[in-house]
Amino acid sequence: MKARNILFVMFDQLRWDYLSCYGHPHLATPNMDRLAAMGVKFTRAYVQAPLCGPSRMSTYTGRYVHSHGASWNGTPLKVGEQTMGDHLRDAGMGCWLVGKTHMHADAEGMRRLGLDPDSIIGARVAECGFDVFERDDGMRAVGPDGPLVEPGGDAYDDHLRRRGYEGDNPWHDHANSGVSEAGDVLSGWFMKNAGEAANIEEEDSETPYLTRRGMAFIESRGEEPWLCHLSYIKPHWPYVVPAPYNDMYGPDAIVPPVRGQDEFDNAHPVLKAFMTSPVGKAFSREEVRNAVIPAYMGLIKQCDDQFGVLLDWLEETGRLRDTMIVLTSDHGDFLGDHWMGEKTFFHDAAVKVPLIVFDPSPEADGTRGTVCDELVEAIDLAPTFVEIAGGRVRDHVLEGCSLLPLLHGKQGWSRDAVISEYDFAATPIADRLGLSVRDSVMFMVADKRWKLIHCEGGFRPILFDLDRDPEELHDLGDSEAHTQIISQMYDKLFRWARRPSQRTTRSEEQLIELRTALRRRGVVLGVYDENEIPLDLTVHYRNRTARIRRPRGQ
Amino acid sequence: MKARNILFVMFDQLRWDYLSCYGHPHLATPNMDRLAAMGVKFTRAYVQAPLCGPSRMSTYTGRYVHSHGASWNGTPLKVGEQTMGDHLRDAGMGCWLVGKTHMHADAEGMRRLGLDPDSIIGARVAECGFDVFERDDGMRAVGPDGPLVEPGGDAYDDHLRRRGYEGDNPWHDHANSGVSEAGDVLSGWFMKNAGEAANIEEEDSETPYLTRRGMAFIESRGEEPWLCHLSYIKPHWPYVVPAPYNDMYGPDAIVPPVRGQDEFDNAHPVLKAFMTSPVGKAFSREEVRNAVIPAYMGLIKQCDDQFGVLLDWLEETGRLRDTMIVLTSDHGDFLGDHWMGEKTFFHDAAVKVPLIVFDPSPEADGTRGTVCDELVEAIDLAPTFVEIAGGRVRDHVLEGCSLLPLLHGKQGWSRDAVISEYDFAATPIADRLGLSVRDSVMFMVADKRWKLIHCEGGFRPILFDLDRDPEELHDLGDSEAHTQIISQMYDKLFRWARRPSQRTTRSEEQLIELRTALRRRGVVLGVYDENEIPLDLTVHYRNRTARIRRPRGQ
Repeated sequence: MKARNILFVMFDQLRWDYLSCYGHPHLATPNMDRLAAMGVKFTRAYVQAPLCGPSRMSTYTGRYVHSHGASWNGTPLKVGEQTMGDHLRDAGMGCWLVGKTHMHADAEGMRRLGLDPDSIIGARVAECGFDVFERDDGMRAVGPDGPLVEPGGDAYDDHLRRRGYEGDNPWHDHANSGVSEAGDVLSGWFMKNAGEAANIEEEDSETPYLTRRGMAFIESRGEEPWLCHLSYIKPHWPYVVPAPYNDMYGPDAIVPPVRGQDEFDNAHPVLKAFMTSPVGKAFSREEVRNAVIPAYMGLIKQCDDQFGVLLDWLEETGRLRDTMIVLTSDHGDFLGDHWMGEKTFFHDAAVKVPLIVFDPSPEADGTRGTVCDELVEAIDLAPTFVEIAGGRVRDHVLEGCSLLPLLHGKQGWSRDAVISEYDFAATPIADRLGLSVRDSVMFMVADKRWKLIHCEGGFRPILFDLDRDPEELHDLGDSEAHTQIISQMYDKLFRWARRPSQRTTRSEEQLIELRTALRRRGVVLGVYDENEIPLDLTVHYRNRTARIRRPRGQ
Repeated sequence: MKARNILFVMFDQLRWDYLSCYGHPHLATPNMDRLAAMGVKFTRAYVQAPLCGPSRMSTYTGRYVHSHGASWNGTPLKVGEQTMGDHLRDAGMGCWLVGKTHMHADAEGMRRLGLDPDSIIGARVAECGFDVFERDDGMRAVGPDGPLVEPGGDAYDDHLRRRGYEGDNPWHDHANSGVSEAGDVLSGWFMKNAGEAANIEEEDSETPYLTRRGMAFIESRGEEPWLCHLSYIKPHWPYVVPAPYNDMYGPDAIVPPVRGQDEFDNAHPVLKAFMTSPVGKAFSREEVRNAVIPAYMGLIKQCDDQFGVLLDWLEETGRLRDTMIVLTSDHGDFLGDHWMGEKTFFHDAAVKVPLIVFDPSPEADGTRGTVCDELVEAIDLAPTFVEIAGGRVRDHVLEGCSLLPLLHGKQGWSRDAVISEYDFAATPIADRLGLSVRDSVMFMVADKRWKLIHCEGGFRPILFDLDRDPEELHDLGDSEAHTQIISQMYDKLFRWARRPSQRTTRSEEQLIELRTALRRRGVVLGVYDENEIPLDLTVHYRNRTARIRRPRGQ
């Protein structure tokens, strides 16, 4: 049966190789693996930015960060950018959100255009094109300047309060912290507390809660086909998980860090600045990895269990027959690899994501359980979904390519490079490097063999040979032997940078049609006299056209 | 006195070297020259596209074509793009149109956002940010597929009818055609008719009419400071002008074409395709030049006379004291130079424009009558106007630089290259070259010495040495001796292509402020325990913060 609906599941900060089907030796994710057995597992799926906000804005618009401009967390997606929701609704499919987007509305732009945030159009613009069933970005931080103002999350707070969790900030005090014997909060912000059991019943923690909300959404649907973006908050930090997941993994389950002393000592200056940032230094310590990684694995195990709950429920309710299911992440997590934490660089640990797609249609029967090694990007999802919805892919707006040919086993995938970007102008690292806002930007261009990272500001590039050095330990960016490769990769980046990404008001078909349209509307350029007017382009002015019509008999 | 208002005069297709102050040997433009004596004359002013629509969209948005995307005539400027009008009104200055913009509204985008074209906001979005006193794009063509649907022009049609000009299309039949003794229309579309006197009283032709409309606008203004974009239709084709201008210039006044046989024989394939297009072939004929150029000169002479009327009137009414006056064009006209007609390539005849700026303020007294040889671009006008209006230039949106420092004789202008673009995907030339829509694009990057033209589609570049070959007759794009220069020019183009042109929702100041903001809102990344919290970043959760506050005494 052809897919009628789409369940688009995103986990947050789920590193690709922490699934057993992607090779983790100690962390079993049987439910995610089950999806891989039902569909296609992509091994070269790249996000357009190794950071939540810009990565998601690319996924939701189907456009590169350089095209939509929301290049940092909290940088609003400018009004006018078209979203997955715009494209899907045009094709008759609803586009709904349950969980996180990291979207910040362009309030100034909305004011400029007079868009009321309480109108349907305004609300969609403010929510990155989604109709909101429940928004929850999973971030309720409070500091000396007051709370971090992030949209959403009120419903989960209300849920916690209804369930009897007390305090000013139950998100922090219960869902994301442990508790001492004396009853003090052991804050999840401190990584040494990562091993504590979250001070919450497991079923009230964020992942089971959002799973139930996703199912509630699906049950609420009527006849209109839907896309449900079930967008989990975890396994993103704070690294705290409720029992029994908090002590499921011991020291033996921690894979050793992928890093080398030489890699650190001779690091490219920009990379070195990330390695020696507070986050990099923290994750370079064994005690941090030992505290965080078991909790991170527990969070993923909980995600997998909940994904199993979801799959079973979809099967039991007959929905597996007509629901496309996509499982992916917005980026990975270095976890101390390459002397870094978090995700804000371009090694595969951060910029490659798990991507598993199940298409229930018979055309996909031939690819079930297979692995696809083609270069794919997060921006490919939006056009894939438009095709499932039966719409026409507006490829003058959407910069990705539908994955359906790959899901249906067709040949001819032609992408020869993937692009990812990171704009760190809003970080202290830019200060440490003495870089202007303009120059605090990096681009990654990668094909199957080579990955080049270009840093603005006059630095040499970084280059990895993914064949010979899949762990990305040996930077060849200053290798004389690789100048030709570097030049070729720069050519790919340059060609990409010149793409006409903003010509979004005219399709290719319209432009081609225009090649003859002007003359047929009477604009006849470069014509000296009547003899040069082609017969089929004779033009008329007024009723008497004697001097304008082509002479008779010619 | 500081400028309070701005009169922003644009002529259409006015070639830079057809003003006497720019060196034309036979065409006296004393009134334009008078402005040059009052202000600064720029000798290296480049438009962002050698075509009306995209050039104007760049001027009106202050952004490159690659940034706003309206890269072809009639390609709508996408909703959400900010305009000169948005910036000026924020600074308390009105932004008004009298004449042509070539704007096409993004009707689909406006529908998507629910913008009513009849609301004030919707009307401004549809009119490229201008409040319309009178819109007239000067194009009332009719062909076998019906009329070319261009906005505006009704008021001029009404004027002609009121004045007794008959026919279905008085714009064509009277303002832009001659008449035979038998009373037949001698259509201005046919260049052989260029020498005919337009079948209209001089005072009713387009240039005097718009001059009067501009003065009527200015007289109608109250207290609010204004920018008036007085945007003439001429000397753009149809090349027809009323008496006495139609026979003011004889064959001796026609400057010889700048072209060489070798230039034609060995032309780069893309350039050759333009030379051998119907327009190129037509303008390569002497009879065409001999017919068109005297009419073109007559049109300019009429423009100059009308500009004189305007200047005198401004002086008499005391308005010269507080009005900045800008005179420029949207592009030039090849007129047979380089075997081409029209403007759609990057030789100076097409891509360089006259730019004269008069600033009445005392700060500009030191530069009156001077010449500025710096590299300036049409996108520099919008920020200049914002400064005059007393606004803050939003340089994360506006890509040009205010010209005020140059007008005030200050040092430090730092632009090292200008960029222009031409997207010919909608033209038959793309077909003849067998190019895809994606590859029917060219970029020009020029500094004071070198001009490089990059054509997509795998061609070698075109290169001119503007010092040794100011006539641009010798293409060095395949010269072994210039590989270093070519590489340097490509570096400039590449750096430009990577600019963050879409990050328009965050200013540099905001990004820099964010470098510390997250922590102060309680997001403390990479912190193992309390000892790693800087004193001034202590965070609080709930009332009891014992485990979170930094230990006492440290």
